[in-house]
Amino acid sequence: MANDKRDPDWYLALMAPNTKGPEFSWLDPTAMYRNAEAFQQCVADLTKAFKPDEVDLVAGIDATGFILGGAIACHLKKGFLAIRKYGHLCVDVDDVRFKDYSKKEKRLEIRKDAFKPGTKVLIVDQWIETGGNMGAAVELVERQQGIVAGIACVCIEETEGGKRLMEKYKCVSSVVSREIQDQVNAKNLESFKTYKPL
Amino acid sequence: MANDKRDPDWYLALMAPNTKGPEFSWLDPTAMYRNAEAFQQCVADLTKAFKPDEVDLVAGIDATGFILGGAIACHLKKGFLAIRKYGHLCVDVDDVRFKDYSKKEKRLEIRKDAFKPGTKVLIVDQWIETGGNMGAAVELVERQQGIVAGIACVCIEETEGGKRLMEKYKCVSSVVSREIQDQVNAKNLESFKTYKPL
Repeated sequence: MANDKRDPDWYLALMAPNTKGPEFSWLDPTAMYRNAEAFQQCVADLTKAFKPDEVDLVAGIDATGFILGGAIACHLKKGFLAIRKYGHLCVDVDDVRFKDYSKKEKRLEIRKDAFKPGTKVLIVDQWIETGGNMGAAVELVERQQGIVAGIACVCIEETEGGKRLMEKYKCVSSVVSREIQDQVNAKNLESFKTYKPL
Repeated sequence: MANDKRDPDWYLALMAPNTKGPEFSWLDPTAMYRNAEAFQQCVADLTKAFKPDEVDLVAGIDATGFILGGAIACHLKKGFLAIRKYGHLCVDVDDVRFKDYSKKEKRLEIRKDAFKPGTKVLIVDQWIETGGNMGAAVELVERQQGIVAGIACVCIEETEGGKRLMEKYKCVSSVVSREIQDQVNAKNLESFKTYKPL
Protein backbone atom coordinates (compact mmCIF):
# COMPACT_ATOMS: atom_id res chain seq x y z
CA MET A 1 0.00 0.00 0.00
CA ALA A 2 1.05 3.55 -0.76
CA ASN A 3 0.99 4.60 2.87
CA ASP A 4 3.19 1.80 4.26
CA LYS A 5 6.02 4.18 4.90
CA ARG A 6 3.85 6.97 6.21
CA ASP A 7 4.03 8.12 9.79
CA PRO A 8 1.23 6.25 11.61
CA ASP A 9 -0.14 9.61 12.77
CA TRP A 10 -0.15 11.02 9.21
CA TYR A 11 -3.86 11.60 8.85
CA LEU A 12 -4.24 13.62 12.04
CA ALA A 13 -2.57 16.51 10.19
CA LEU A 14 -5.77 16.75 8.10
CA MET A 15 -7.77 18.00 11.09
CA ALA A 16 -8.75 21.67 10.87
CA PRO A 17 -7.80 24.28 13.45
CA ASN A 18 -10.54 26.34 15.11
CA THR A 19 -10.97 29.69 13.37
CA LYS A 20 -14.00 30.80 15.37
CA GLY A 21 -12.82 31.60 18.88
CA PRO A 22 -12.90 30.21 22.39
CA GLU A 23 -16.51 29.04 22.59
CA PHE A 24 -15.77 26.34 20.02
CA SER A 25 -13.68 23.19 20.31
CA TRP A 26 -10.03 23.75 19.47
CA LEU A 27 -10.04 21.67 16.30
CA ASP A 28 -12.30 19.83 13.90
CA PRO A 29 -11.62 16.13 13.30
CA THR A 30 -14.46 15.95 10.75
CA ALA A 31 -12.11 17.80 8.36
CA MET A 32 -10.07 14.59 8.27
CA TYR A 33 -13.01 12.23 7.65
CA ARG A 34 -13.56 13.70 4.17
CA ASN A 35 -10.39 12.01 2.97
CA ALA A 36 -11.37 8.43 2.06
CA GLU A 37 -7.98 6.96 2.88
CA ALA A 38 -7.80 8.81 6.20
CA PHE A 39 -11.31 7.79 7.25
CA GLN A 40 -10.77 4.12 6.39
CA GLN A 41 -7.37 4.14 8.08
CA CYS A 42 -8.83 5.70 11.21
CA VAL A 43 -11.55 3.02 11.42
CA ALA A 44 -8.95 0.28 10.86
CA ASP A 45 -6.64 1.73 13.52
CA LEU A 46 -9.43 2.02 16.09
CA THR A 47 -10.62 -1.55 15.62
CA LYS A 48 -7.49 -3.64 15.14
CA ALA A 49 -6.98 -4.09 18.89
CA PHE A 50 -10.36 -5.83 19.25
CA LYS A 51 -10.92 -9.48 18.36
CA PRO A 52 -14.36 -10.24 16.88
CA ASP A 53 -15.57 -11.98 20.07
CA GLU A 54 -14.44 -9.10 22.30
CA VAL A 55 -17.27 -6.86 21.09
CA ASP A 56 -21.00 -7.61 20.85
CA LEU A 57 -22.31 -4.12 20.19
CA VAL A 58 -20.83 -0.74 19.18
CA ALA A 59 -22.19 2.35 20.93
CA GLY A 60 -21.62 5.86 19.61
CA ILE A 61 -22.10 9.14 21.47
CA ASP A 62 -24.33 11.85 19.94
CA ALA A 63 -23.46 13.53 17.60
CA THR A 64 -19.95 13.10 16.13
CA GLY A 65 -19.44 9.77 17.93
CA PHE A 66 -22.16 8.48 15.59
CA ILE A 67 -19.86 8.96 12.59
CA LEU A 68 -16.99 6.76 13.75
CA GLY A 69 -19.37 4.54 15.74
CA GLY A 70 -21.49 3.78 12.69
CA ALA A 71 -18.39 3.13 10.61
CA ILE A 72 -16.87 0.88 13.29
CA ALA A 73 -20.11 -1.09 13.69
CA CYS A 74 -20.09 -1.63 9.92
CA HIS A 75 -16.40 -2.61 9.91
CA LEU A 76 -16.83 -5.09 12.81
CA LYS A 77 -20.22 -6.29 11.48
CA LYS A 78 -21.95 -5.52 14.76
CA GLY A 79 -25.12 -3.70 15.74
CA PHE A 80 -25.07 -0.04 16.76
CA LEU A 81 -26.46 1.59 19.90
CA ALA A 82 -27.14 5.33 19.89
CA ILE A 83 -26.17 7.13 23.12
CA ARG A 84 -28.21 10.29 22.67
CA LYS A 85 -28.35 13.79 24.07
CA TYR A 86 -31.20 13.97 26.55
CA GLY A 87 -34.72 14.41 25.21
CA HIS A 88 -34.26 12.92 21.77
CA LEU A 89 -35.43 9.34 22.06
CA CYS A 90 -39.17 8.71 21.70
CA VAL A 91 -39.01 5.66 23.98
CA ASP A 92 -38.44 5.11 27.72
CA VAL A 93 -34.85 5.92 28.64
CA ASP A 94 -32.18 5.78 31.31
CA ASP A 95 -30.37 9.08 31.58
CA VAL A 96 -27.38 10.51 33.40
CA ARG A 97 -26.37 14.11 34.23
CA PHE A 98 -22.76 15.28 34.10
CA LYS A 99 -20.52 18.23 33.34
CA ASP A 100 -18.58 18.28 30.10
CA TYR A 101 -15.44 20.18 29.02
CA SER A 102 -17.44 23.42 28.82
CA LYS A 103 -18.51 22.99 32.52
CA LYS A 104 -22.15 23.08 31.44
CA GLU A 105 -24.52 20.50 32.87
CA LYS A 106 -25.40 17.95 30.21
CA ARG A 107 -27.41 14.76 30.01
CA LEU A 108 -27.11 11.66 27.90
CA GLU A 109 -29.69 8.90 27.47
CA ILE A 110 -30.05 5.41 26.12
CA ARG A 111 -33.22 3.41 25.72
CA LYS A 112 -34.24 1.10 28.55
CA ASP A 113 -33.44 -2.54 27.79
CA ALA A 114 -30.82 -1.34 25.31
CA PHE A 115 -29.11 -4.75 25.38
CA LYS A 116 -29.02 -7.99 27.35
CA PRO A 117 -27.02 -7.99 30.64
CA GLY A 118 -23.44 -9.11 29.96
CA THR A 119 -23.33 -7.60 26.46
CA LYS A 120 -19.80 -6.43 25.59
CA VAL A 121 -20.07 -2.84 24.40
CA LEU A 122 -17.38 -0.88 22.57
CA ILE A 123 -18.05 2.82 23.20
CA VAL A 124 -16.99 5.23 20.45
CA ASP A 125 -16.68 8.99 20.48
CA GLN A 126 -14.80 11.50 18.38
CA TRP A 127 -12.56 12.93 21.09
CA ILE A 128 -12.03 12.73 24.85
CA GLU A 129 -11.09 15.98 26.53
CA THR A 130 -12.24 15.99 30.18
CA GLY A 131 -13.93 12.62 29.83
CA GLY A 132 -17.34 13.92 30.91
CA ASN A 133 -19.30 12.57 27.95
CA MET A 134 -17.47 9.26 27.96
CA GLY A 135 -17.83 8.83 31.73
CA ALA A 136 -21.58 9.34 31.38
CA ALA A 137 -21.74 6.84 28.51
CA VAL A 138 -19.84 4.28 30.59
CA GLU A 139 -22.29 4.79 33.45
CA LEU A 140 -25.28 4.25 31.15
CA VAL A 141 -23.78 1.04 29.75
CA GLU A 142 -22.78 -0.35 33.15
CA ARG A 143 -26.11 0.57 34.75
CA GLN A 144 -27.79 -1.85 32.34
CA GLN A 145 -25.17 -4.48 33.22
CA GLY A 146 -23.24 -4.09 30.01
CA ILE A 147 -19.51 -4.78 30.01
CA VAL A 148 -17.38 -1.99 28.57
CA ALA A 149 -15.31 -3.92 26.02
CA GLY A 150 -13.34 -0.80 25.21
CA ILE A 151 -13.31 2.86 24.36
CA ALA A 152 -12.29 4.14 20.91
CA CYS A 153 -11.75 7.80 19.93
CA VAL A 154 -9.63 9.77 17.48
CA CYS A 155 -7.81 11.11 20.52
CA ILE A 156 -7.82 10.88 24.30
CA GLU A 157 -6.21 13.93 25.90
CA GLU A 158 -4.12 13.10 28.96
CA THR A 159 -6.30 15.11 31.28
CA GLU A 160 -7.30 13.87 34.72
CA GLY A 161 -10.51 12.41 33.27
CA GLY A 162 -8.78 10.99 30.20
CA LYS A 163 -6.16 9.24 32.33
CA ARG A 164 -8.81 7.83 34.67
CA LEU A 165 -10.58 6.20 31.71
CA MET A 166 -7.27 4.83 30.34
CA GLU A 167 -6.44 3.24 33.70
CA LYS A 168 -9.78 1.49 33.99
CA TYR A 169 -10.70 0.49 30.42
CA LYS A 170 -9.10 -0.72 27.23
CA CYS A 171 -8.70 2.54 25.37
CA VAL A 172 -7.69 2.94 21.73
CA SER A 173 -7.01 6.18 19.86
CA SER A 174 -5.51 7.17 16.51
CA VAL A 175 -2.64 8.93 18.25
CA VAL A 176 0.46 6.79 18.18
CA SER A 177 3.50 8.99 18.76
CA ARG A 178 4.44 10.75 21.97
CA GLU A 179 4.99 13.86 19.90
CA ILE A 180 1.40 14.07 18.66
CA GLN A 181 0.05 13.15 22.10
CA ASP A 182 1.98 16.08 23.59
CA GLN A 183 0.58 18.38 20.89
CA VAL A 184 -3.02 17.35 21.58
CA ASN A 185 -2.47 17.67 25.32
CA ALA A 186 -1.32 21.24 24.63
CA LYS A 187 -4.34 21.76 22.31
CA ASN A 188 -2.25 22.88 19.38
CA LEU A 189 -1.12 20.73 16.48
CA GLU A 190 2.04 21.61 14.58
CA SER A 191 0.12 20.88 11.37
CA PHE A 192 -2.15 23.88 12.01
CA LYS A 193 0.67 26.15 10.79
CA THR A 194 0.42 24.73 7.28
CA TYR A 195 -3.24 23.62 7.22
CA LYS A 196 -5.18 24.31 4.03
CA PRO A 197 -8.93 23.67 3.76
CA LEU A 198 -8.73 21.52 0.62
CA MET B 1 -27.73 -17.12 4.27
CA ALA B 2 -30.35 -17.63 6.94
CA ASN B 3 -32.42 -14.67 5.80
CA ASP B 4 -32.67 -15.59 2.12
CA LYS B 5 -36.34 -16.34 2.45
CA ARG B 6 -37.11 -13.39 4.66
CA ASP B 7 -39.34 -10.58 3.53
CA PRO B 8 -36.98 -7.84 2.24
CA ASP B 9 -38.65 -5.42 4.67
CA TRP B 10 -38.14 -7.79 7.65
CA TYR B 11 -35.87 -5.60 9.73
CA LEU B 12 -38.13 -2.55 9.66
CA ALA B 13 -40.35 -4.38 12.17
CA LEU B 14 -37.54 -3.88 14.72
CA MET B 15 -38.15 -0.13 14.84
CA ALA B 16 -39.72 1.10 18.07
CA PRO B 17 -43.00 2.98 18.28
CA ASN B 18 -43.11 6.38 20.01
CA THR B 19 -44.25 6.05 23.63
CA LYS B 20 -43.68 9.69 24.54
CA GLY B 21 -46.34 11.74 22.81
CA PRO B 22 -46.78 14.12 19.90
CA GLU B 23 -43.69 16.30 20.30
CA PHE B 24 -41.50 13.34 19.39
CA SER B 25 -41.02 11.58 16.09
CA TRP B 26 -43.50 8.78 15.53
CA LEU B 27 -40.96 5.98 15.66
CA ASP B 28 -37.34 5.21 16.45
CA PRO B 29 -35.24 3.56 13.74
CA THR B 30 -32.22 3.40 16.09
CA ALA B 31 -34.03 0.52 17.83
CA MET B 32 -33.34 -1.50 14.69
CA TYR B 33 -29.65 -0.61 14.40
CA ARG B 34 -28.85 -2.56 17.60
CA ASN B 35 -29.44 -5.80 15.73
CA ALA B 36 -26.18 -6.62 13.93
CA GLU B 37 -27.86 -8.44 11.05
CA ALA B 38 -30.44 -5.69 10.59
CA PHE B 39 -27.83 -2.91 10.64
CA GLN B 40 -25.57 -4.65 8.14
CA GLN B 41 -28.52 -5.52 5.92
CA CYS B 42 -29.73 -1.93 5.98
CA VAL B 43 -26.29 -0.64 4.93
CA ALA B 44 -26.09 -3.25 2.16
CA ASP B 45 -29.60 -2.41 0.92
CA LEU B 46 -28.90 1.32 0.84
CA THR B 47 -25.67 0.96 -1.12
CA LYS B 48 -26.29 -1.79 -3.64
CA ALA B 49 -27.80 0.59 -6.20
CA PHE B 50 -24.57 2.62 -6.37
CA LYS B 51 -21.56 1.53 -8.39
CA PRO B 52 -18.18 2.44 -6.84
CA ASP B 53 -17.51 5.22 -9.38
CA GLU B 54 -20.95 6.78 -8.87
CA VAL B 55 -19.99 8.14 -5.45
CA ASP B 56 -16.91 10.14 -4.42
CA LEU B 57 -17.98 11.21 -0.95
CA VAL B 58 -20.70 10.23 1.55
CA ALA B 59 -22.42 13.05 3.45
CA GLY B 60 -24.51 12.42 6.58
CA ILE B 61 -26.97 14.81 8.20
CA ASP B 62 -26.57 15.65 11.93
CA ALA B 63 -27.32 13.67 14.10
CA THR B 64 -28.82 10.29 13.20
CA GLY B 65 -27.77 10.61 9.56
CA PHE B 66 -24.23 10.31 10.90
CA ILE B 67 -24.90 6.71 11.97
CA LEU B 68 -25.90 5.32 8.59
CA GLY B 69 -23.68 7.84 6.78
CA GLY B 70 -20.58 6.73 8.69
CA ALA B 71 -21.46 3.09 8.09
CA ILE B 72 -22.10 3.65 4.38
CA ALA B 73 -18.82 5.59 3.95
CA CYS B 74 -17.05 2.64 5.57
CA HIS B 75 -18.90 0.12 3.40
CA LEU B 76 -18.18 2.03 0.16
CA LYS B 77 -14.62 2.92 1.30
CA LYS B 78 -15.22 6.62 0.77
CA GLY B 79 -14.62 9.72 2.86
CA PHE B 80 -17.36 11.22 5.02
CA LEU B 81 -18.67 14.79 5.10
CA ALA B 82 -20.56 16.00 8.18
CA ILE B 83 -23.60 18.18 7.42
CA ARG B 84 -24.04 19.78 10.81
CA LYS B 85 -26.70 21.66 12.73
CA TYR B 86 -25.85 25.35 12.64
CA GLY B 87 -23.25 26.66 15.06
CA HIS B 88 -21.29 23.48 15.61
CA LEU B 89 -18.36 23.69 13.23
CA CYS B 90 -15.31 25.63 14.42
CA VAL B 91 -14.38 26.61 10.85
CA ASP B 92 -15.87 28.93 8.20
CA VAL B 93 -19.15 27.52 6.90
CA ASP B 94 -21.89 27.80 4.32
CA ASP B 95 -25.30 27.56 5.96
CA VAL B 96 -28.92 27.34 4.88
CA ARG B 97 -32.17 28.10 6.72
CA PHE B 98 -35.28 25.95 6.26
CA LYS B 99 -38.37 24.62 8.00
CA ASP B 100 -38.43 20.97 9.05
CA TYR B 101 -41.33 18.59 9.80
CA SER B 102 -41.95 20.38 13.11
CA LYS B 103 -42.39 23.73 11.22
CA LYS B 104 -39.59 25.23 13.29
CA GLU B 105 -36.92 27.24 11.52
CA LYS B 106 -33.69 25.26 11.38
CA ARG B 107 -30.26 25.72 9.89
CA LEU B 108 -27.68 23.30 8.60
CA GLU B 109 -24.06 24.03 7.77
CA ILE B 110 -21.06 22.51 6.02
CA ARG B 111 -17.53 23.78 5.96
CA LYS B 112 -16.49 26.07 3.11
CA ASP B 113 -14.44 24.22 0.50
CA ALA B 114 -16.00 20.98 1.69
CA PHE B 115 -15.03 19.23 -1.55
CA LYS B 116 -13.83 19.98 -5.08
CA PRO B 117 -16.45 21.17 -7.61
CA GLY B 118 -17.89 18.18 -9.49
CA THR B 119 -17.54 15.81 -6.52
CA LYS B 120 -20.31 13.18 -6.56
CA VAL B 121 -21.93 13.21 -3.12
CA LEU B 122 -24.27 10.55 -1.71
CA ILE B 123 -26.39 12.23 0.98
CA VAL B 124 -27.55 10.01 3.85
CA ASP B 125 -30.13 10.63 6.54
CA GLN B 126 -32.17 8.40 8.80
CA TRP B 127 -35.63 9.30 7.54
CA ILE B 128 -37.31 11.75 5.17
CA GLU B 129 -40.64 13.11 6.31
CA THR B 130 -41.30 16.56 4.79
CA GLY B 131 -37.89 16.65 3.13
CA GLY B 132 -36.85 19.87 4.85
CA ASN B 133 -33.54 18.61 6.20
CA MET B 134 -32.67 16.78 2.99
CA GLY B 135 -33.63 19.72 0.80
CA ALA B 136 -31.29 21.93 2.82
CA ALA B 137 -28.50 19.36 2.56
CA VAL B 138 -28.96 19.19 -1.21
CA GLU B 139 -28.76 22.97 -1.40
CA LEU B 140 -25.51 23.03 0.58
CA VAL B 141 -23.96 20.36 -1.65
CA GLU B 142 -25.08 21.99 -4.90
CA ARG B 143 -24.04 25.47 -3.77
CA GLN B 144 -20.46 24.22 -3.64
CA GLN B 145 -20.89 22.67 -7.11
CA GLY B 146 -21.19 19.15 -5.83
CA ILE B 147 -23.27 16.63 -7.80
CA VAL B 148 -25.91 14.81 -5.77
CA ALA B 149 -25.09 11.20 -6.66
CA GLY B 150 -28.05 10.01 -4.65
CA ILE B 151 -30.05 10.12 -1.46
CA ALA B 152 -30.19 7.17 0.95
CA CYS B 153 -32.48 6.86 4.00
CA VAL B 154 -34.20 4.10 5.96
CA CYS B 155 -37.45 5.51 4.63
CA ILE B 156 -38.77 8.30 2.43
CA GLU B 157 -42.38 9.13 3.22
CA GLU B 158 -44.46 9.92 0.15
CA THR B 159 -45.17 13.46 1.25
CA GLU B 160 -45.04 16.40 -1.13
CA GLY B 161 -41.41 17.03 -0.21
CA GLY B 162 -40.49 13.36 -0.29
CA LYS B 163 -41.98 12.92 -3.76
CA ARG B 164 -40.21 16.04 -5.04
CA LEU B 165 -36.84 14.60 -3.99
CA MET B 166 -37.67 11.21 -5.56
CA GLU B 167 -38.51 12.87 -8.88
CA LYS B 168 -35.29 14.83 -9.03
CA TYR B 169 -32.66 12.53 -7.52
CA LYS B 170 -31.74 8.86 -7.33
CA CYS B 171 -33.34 7.91 -4.04
CA VAL B 172 -32.85 4.63 -2.17
CA SER B 173 -34.62 3.49 0.99
CA SER B 174 -34.95 0.26 2.94
CA VAL B 175 -38.66 0.12 2.20
CA VAL B 176 -39.37 -2.35 -0.58
CA SER B 177 -43.02 -3.35 -0.43
CA ARG B 178 -46.01 -1.18 -1.21
CA GLU B 179 -47.56 -2.42 2.04
CA ILE B 180 -44.78 -1.04 4.25
CA GLN B 181 -44.63 2.18 2.23
CA ASP B 182 -48.35 2.70 2.88
CA GLN B 183 -47.81 2.06 6.59
CA VAL B 184 -45.00 4.61 6.86
CA ASN B 185 -47.02 7.12 4.88
CA ALA B 186 -49.79 6.63 7.47
CA LYS B 187 -47.18 6.90 10.29
CA ASN B 188 -48.16 3.63 11.89
CA LEU B 189 -46.44 0.30 11.39
CA GLU B 190 -48.38 -2.93 11.83
CA SER B 191 -45.38 -4.27 13.75
CA PHE B 192 -45.98 -1.75 16.55
CA LYS B 193 -48.82 -3.96 17.81
CA THR B 194 -46.40 -6.72 18.73
CA TYR B 195 -43.22 -4.69 19.33
CA LYS B 196 -41.13 -5.72 22.33
CA PRO B 197 -38.08 -3.68 23.46
CA LEU B 198 -35.65 -6.62 23.48
